[in-house]
Amino acid sequence: MTRTVYVNGEYLPEHQATVSVFDRGFLFADGVYEVTSVLGGKLIDFAGHAKRLERSLTELGMDMPMTEEDLLAIHRRLVDDNGIEDGLVYLQITRGAADRDFAYPAPDTPLTVVLFTQTKPGLADSPVAKKGIKVISIPDERWGRRDIKTVQLLYPSMGKMQAKAEGADDAWMIEDGHVTEGTSNNAYIVKDGTLITRHLGTEILHGITRAAVLRFAREAQMKVEERSFTLDEALAADEAFITSASTFVMPVVSIDGTDIGDGTPGPVAKRLREIYLDESRKAAV
Amino acid sequence: MTRTVYVNGEYLPEHQATVSVFDRGFLFADGVYEVTSVLGGKLIDFAGHAKRLERSLTELGMDMPMTEEDLLAIHRRLVDDNGIEDGLVYLQITRGAADRDFAYPAPDTPLTVVLFTQTKPGLADSPVAKKGIKVISIPDERWGRRDIKTVQLLYPSMGKMQAKAEGADDAWMIEDGHVTEGTSNNAYIVKDGTLITRHLGTEILHGITRAAVLRFAREAQMKVEERSFTLDEALAADEAFITSASTFVMPVVSIDGTDIGDGTPGPVAKRLREIYLDESRKAAV
Repeated sequence: MTRTVYVNGEYLPEHQATVSVFDRGFLFADGVYEVTSVLGGKLIDFAGHAKRLERSLTELGMDMPMTEEDLLAIHRRLVDDNGIEDGLVYLQITRGAADRDFAYPAPDTPLTVVLFTQTKPGLADSPVAKKGIKVISIPDERWGRRDIKTVQLLYPSMGKMQAKAEGADDAWMIEDGHVTEGTSNNAYIVKDGTLITRHLGTEILHGITRAAVLRFAREAQMKVEERSFTLDEALAADEAFITSASTFVMPVVSIDGTDIGDGTPGPVAKRLREIYLDESRKAAV
Repeated sequence: MTRTVYVNGEYLPEHQATVSVFDRGFLFADGVYEVTSVLGGKLIDFAGHAKRLERSLTELGMDMPMTEEDLLAIHRRLVDDNGIEDGLVYLQITRGAADRDFAYPAPDTPLTVVLFTQTKPGLADSPVAKKGIKVISIPDERWGRRDIKTVQLLYPSMGKMQAKAEGADDAWMIEDGHVTEGTSNNAYIVKDGTLITRHLGTEILHGITRAAVLRFAREAQMKVEERSFTLDEALAADEAFITSASTFVMPVVSIDGTDIGDGTPGPVAKRLREIYLDESRKAAV
């Protein structure tokens, strides 16, 4: 089956889904994105993603090109047209196409809006979640505004490849001795019953799944500390895990070859994954 | 006139020049570029740009998609077809189109190759060069591998816009108190007859024009120091200027509102601009 892709108001077969070579997303990485998971044909945390999208755009001096309702309608149509039961909807908005210039184009230049789907059957029952993932640590060499969800993703891609080359699944990035986050996810440790994850700031993405998981953890009476933690703390933790829109809550069982805890998914990560999936499915739209 | 644009082997009218929405240049900023100036219908420093392109690709695990000769032939055809007397040829190569994944696609995925021209009549006789430009200083918030000429150019774009908003022309970026470079150019100061510009490293782009200008300066018996310099040193300098493929040597007459020297283009910048343009025209291909 050929996917249907949304490009600037049109629903196109994927091989016809193109943007101008003058698009600022292509020439300057001048664009932002969101990934919304789909479970049972419904969108997870859509409102959170729409809100963060608006924040990213605002930080870069762009306006939302349509209402949240219109955005939702496009998401739903793509889920339907592409028969997505479990998977995700990817959304990207760029500053549009204009002759190449570091200065932004005229403010009335139409933004580019692209959405496509990926099917991931059994996304929530991933066998990977049952055994956990291995991560390596790498220096965090990204730009300074990681709170804006831009498409400047080359370094995370390089980190992912380095992890694979070393027999691991992902990389945690280290800045000034402290873990910032994973290549496309937020990072957590559990020590003596306390859940620790880096505080919000410009150094990390303000994860939608992160916000939900911390809310659920607090509702479950867990002690939560939002603060930076060192790689050494992580290596000595009882548990480690990541969260993201497409991995939900995913246990981390080793870092740089050192087992975390007993080297198997820990009870906190497993419990939070269950709660997150249960609650998110209930609230899905 | 509609420009002719090169996309993956085809010469297309500009409005038909597109890339897939799945192109990794669009989704991950996973691509590199070069800009080669054209003066009198001939390419300036082409060999230098081709060599740096190969280095950028190699650093990212990509191979040159064609020989330097084939690349030159495309440049020349676009210059001819688009009647470029003075202007530039922009070249971008990305890791190609593949379903979205942080991990790189299969190694046999064809790279995307795009080239287009911009006409800039009188490029070498810019009135701006006669009065010089004003710059502001901003923190350097870019990623760590600025020696690779990637399309992750959002922060430089933001810096350019901030400069314009403050009535200036460009921004110099500051890291640990020292100037790294301009948003799309290398930065220089002159003090007591010595030309000072930051040493090569991962912190700055290895400018093709920089290399040529330093060679000409040394040939002209100027004292050259390749070392980092502070913003305070720049503010107290006798002269300041920038170099890039499309501005050649451009005097900087004020930084953060403070006049440099007497606030007019200095003799060293003017002389180096003349030498660079003379020698580059002679060697143009």
